[in-house]
Amino acid sequence: MSRSSATTLVGIGASPGIAIGRCWTIERRRVRTPKRRLTPEEVEAELARLRTSLEISDVQLAEVRGKVEESQAPGSAEHTAIIDMHRMMLKDEMLVLEAQRQIREERLNAEWAVKRATRKIKNAFHEQADDYFKERRADVDFVGERIIKNLLGQAPDVEDVPPEGVIVVAHDLSPADTALLLHEHKVAAFVTDAGAKTSHTAIVARALEVPAVVGVGRVTAVADRGDWIVVDGGRGLVVINPSPGERAGYEAAREKQLAGEQALLATRDLPARTLDDLTVRLAGNIEFAEEVPSLIAHGGEAVGLYRTEFLFMGRSDLPGEEEHYQNYRRILEALAPRPVTIRTFDLGGDKLPAGMRVTAENPALGLRAIRYCLRQPEMFRAQLRALLRASVHGNLRVMFPMISGVAELRAAKHALRQAADELRAEGVAFRQVPVGIMVELPSAAMIADRLAAECDFFSIGTNDLIQYTIGIDRQDKDVAYLYKPLHLAVLRLLKLVCDAGRAAGVPVSMCGEMAGEPVNALVLLGLGVAELSMNGPSIPLVKRVVRAARAEDGRALVDRLLALTTADDIEHEVQAEMARRFPGLLDGDDDAEPAGQG
Amino acid sequence: MSRSSATTLVGIGASPGIAIGRCWTIERRRVRTPKRRLTPEEVEAELARLRTSLEISDVQLAEVRGKVEESQAPGSAEHTAIIDMHRMMLKDEMLVLEAQRQIREERLNAEWAVKRATRKIKNAFHEQADDYFKERRADVDFVGERIIKNLLGQAPDVEDVPPEGVIVVAHDLSPADTALLLHEHKVAAFVTDAGAKTSHTAIVARALEVPAVVGVGRVTAVADRGDWIVVDGGRGLVVINPSPGERAGYEAAREKQLAGEQALLATRDLPARTLDDLTVRLAGNIEFAEEVPSLIAHGGEAVGLYRTEFLFMGRSDLPGEEEHYQNYRRILEALAPRPVTIRTFDLGGDKLPAGMRVTAENPALGLRAIRYCLRQPEMFRAQLRALLRASVHGNLRVMFPMISGVAELRAAKHALRQAADELRAEGVAFRQVPVGIMVELPSAAMIADRLAAECDFFSIGTNDLIQYTIGIDRQDKDVAYLYKPLHLAVLRLLKLVCDAGRAAGVPVSMCGEMAGEPVNALVLLGLGVAELSMNGPSIPLVKRVVRAARAEDGRALVDRLLALTTADDIEHEVQAEMARRFPGLLDGDDDAEPAGQG
Repeated sequence: MSRSSATTLVGIGASPGIAIGRCWTIERRRVRTPKRRLTPEEVEAELARLRTSLEISDVQLAEVRGKVEESQAPGSAEHTAIIDMHRMMLKDEMLVLEAQRQIREERLNAEWAVKRATRKIKNAFHEQADDYFKERRADVDFVGERIIKNLLGQAPDVEDVPPEGVIVVAHDLSPADTALLLHEHKVAAFVTDAGAKTSHTAIVARALEVPAVVGVGRVTAVADRGDWIVVDGGRGLVVINPSPGERAGYEAAREKQLAGEQALLATRDLPARTLDDLTVRLAGNIEFAEEVPSLIAHGGEAVGLYRTEFLFMGRSDLPGEEEHYQNYRRILEALAPRPVTIRTFDLGGDKLPAGMRVTAENPALGLRAIRYCLRQPEMFRAQLRALLRASVHGNLRVMFPMISGVAELRAAKHALRQAADELRAEGVAFRQVPVGIMVELPSAAMIADRLAAECDFFSIGTNDLIQYTIGIDRQDKDVAYLYKPLHLAVLRLLKLVCDAGRAAGVPVSMCGEMAGEPVNALVLLGLGVAELSMNGPSIPLVKRVVRAARAEDGRALVDRLLALTTADDIEHEVQAEMARRFPGLLDGDDDAEPAGQG
Repeated sequence: MSRSSATTLVGIGASPGIAIGRCWTIERRRVRTPKRRLTPEEVEAELARLRTSLEISDVQLAEVRGKVEESQAPGSAEHTAIIDMHRMMLKDEMLVLEAQRQIREERLNAEWAVKRATRKIKNAFHEQADDYFKERRADVDFVGERIIKNLLGQAPDVEDVPPEGVIVVAHDLSPADTALLLHEHKVAAFVTDAGAKTSHTAIVARALEVPAVVGVGRVTAVADRGDWIVVDGGRGLVVINPSPGERAGYEAAREKQLAGEQALLATRDLPARTLDDLTVRLAGNIEFAEEVPSLIAHGGEAVGLYRTEFLFMGRSDLPGEEEHYQNYRRILEALAPRPVTIRTFDLGGDKLPAGMRVTAENPALGLRAIRYCLRQPEMFRAQLRALLRASVHGNLRVMFPMISGVAELRAAKHALRQAADELRAEGVAFRQVPVGIMVELPSAAMIADRLAAECDFFSIGTNDLIQYTIGIDRQDKDVAYLYKPLHLAVLRLLKLVCDAGRAAGVPVSMCGEMAGEPVNALVLLGLGVAELSMNGPSIPLVKRVVRAARAEDGRALVDRLLALTTADDIEHEVQAEMARRFPGLLDGDDDAEPAGQG
């Protein structure tokens, strides 16, 4: 079966780390959905079939959940949360009522009715600009497929049990598949044709620190069961049938990487302080309370961005104040006394219960985030009241997304003040909390001085700020080449924001992807960013750079960069400087001593 | 039939002016398209029916065109151009081949085949962000309807001839309808339920200076034939059955307005020079060469923006170099020696021949304008060669849209240089032309100093600049309230661009809507904008403000505005200043003497 020469494939590095092992291909057949028109007499029986399949599906997912929970593995909590979401979808009104309607009114068989209902939900998702929600369409598919397979009496989960330590190769994996593979069967890595960095499979792999490469496109066509495979999740590489020499090389690299990681983690409890005594706070961007242990294990000192959109997902109604409150309380308590910045609802209305949705030709330029919240005062009020109530349980900061100007900030603060007045009148305890804004629109960056006068902190959302500034959607492959974090215009806007913050005594945080890339750390120190918020596993390397750097070198570097013109020139200068000051540090060569540390 | 009390309806003022007259309702019945499956034997006959209908449709349009041409009325040239475009659509490959395919392969009757084909073309349009092209969907409808009506033996054009001087009220009007109504029957005004400021009906009404209000929504439900109607196209008002007092009031207003217009036009040949001797150039934004006479009649001194997208419309292939050349030559010759700024192709790819189209989730942030041109070097090359060849026929300036940074400007200039090198090698004559850019992305505004070093002029496209800066699509009614030309962030960006232009000796033009609003004229003088480009009819009033203003007052006003914070405060300050300095000027009270003119 195996080939004599090595094949290297390139995909998306979804979870870093090197794994070497035998290939275990998994065939996940797409279900073929039969279509049939019912006679009127058959309708009731078909509704019963649907009910049964939904129940079976829920029992199956409950079982997977139980196995994951039992494993007590790190990351198991993320996994159970995702599986709970799939279980919630089985009860989603849009799915169930629509499928029932298709059976009753269109007289379609249950399989086809489920297919139509899931397609309808997915179409609503499609309009949405946020890449997070694009991947959620895959979740809908997985749930729909499970129901249909159960209707057809087919097994929806992977049945073929892989031995421990193999590398799983599949076209795609459902969250339930990965749950079983990682927690029960302890596979060493996985590689899929489909998937993206934001798919659940990728999120879970990162949480479990299992190397993964996704979006390879054709790995199932190339790899056979039993082949030797090397997975380099950091670089997104998959080598099939490496030569003995290559294997040895990767094994050495793996050993070195593991040792390096240990060394990095050793800095966990050390402050992120530069050699010339500037301390920055390294924080985490999280979405589930379950990510907290991993964040703390990597040395996270705060949560710089807690996304609250999850509360609105996979349901047919709005979360109530109590549900918000319990969620915020949980995260605040888990991190106390560390500060936790909770961002209010940041999405367009497509994900909302029917009747509250909005569609737009350019969703990224439409009714989103704070705009949407101000339009839905009752929904916003529930969130704000819950935030204030939760404030007594930890160190809360409240952050408004997509603020475009001072009037909007005032309107949002007014809503918060009203919620506070209500609670006070009701005798409910709460604390005064710092109120900040995401700086992610060019208009906000341009008037940062005025905004600084009316809020307590800034958090720069570089992903959006770059997109609006350059007028590109980086999810759009046709123009992604224009996405340049170090475009001179972006650098100047960042400087405006940092200078305005400094002048007003308003701390500036950064929670876009730019903050987690070690190569940018010196630039960000030079600009005066006070908090860098990123995925937990990125913290150790950024901390290492910070501890080996001098802020004054960062300031000098920024001055030099501002004298350059093209984004390419600026990028090259940053890379050259980083290579000079921290030789080897950024390409994983952990033997090298940072030059600054002498 | 007529009611005793007046009804006032509000719509979109599509063409200014007051008209008073009797209502003439026109019923334009939507065609009901029958659907039928053909037997295989019927296919050839059905293809012949389609052919005949296309031929009849062309004859009809040729006849309308002839009548319009004969009338020699002002604006008739615009009109014939639009009708020519409809005739071109009758030969559009996408329409004809698709309809034939539907007949042959789907065995559909010709009526339904045409309906399907037009729907397909319209769907392609829908993705497009540009409001111009949304209105072009209506053109496809009109053409499709004509073909279908001819298949059914129904009359596609308005048959019921209105007496001269009536006010036409209709649900919607096709360009052919308005051609006949305006040129042949000399109606006094029209009002429609449907339509937008960019529909052809509105464009033609403005060119002919016939008052029009569109998008009223329910005028056909309220007005009856014979009712007295007042149309105030400037304010978008329609009064049905005014009281005798109201009628007299509107008649007086009408007289005054006509006199005022004469007074304004009297300044046609005077320079747009402030009292303290700053001269600005007042230019026109145009799309058809046919708009030139009206522009010149209104005192236009240049074309600040000539859009070239028209060349790509309603066709199934790309325009060749010769076609580009003839078009550019015509416009340059018509205006010589006045400068003409021609903007290279500024659209996403939806409007292009099949196989070259692009779709995007956020078209406004996608592959558009210069990005698209750089990706299609052959298409761009034809346009650039044609521009250079045309340069010998007038005073040409070439402008690149959507430039995001220096690298992109260099790439565009490189393409122009290559075209020049080719022509030189071929011995073809051309001139060196000034090369400028649209400043319409925040990134371009932020680095205007660097861009100024590498181009000859700037033209600020405020519509897009505002949209990207604030992160809103103003076509999206949910967020249009955030569109604020006087947002402090926008004002600061405008100042950056103007200051950078001044420092580098690069003249700054403005061609967004902001430039044509008289209320902004003092602010723009204060910022130092050297050329204001707008619709021809807006020129006289802007010129009046300029001639009554002092640039130093504008500079003082800008300083005061920059000290304010919210867009509302800034707007109020501008309005108060304009009311103080030019009392009555901006609300059409032409008796008032501008205070500055003492």
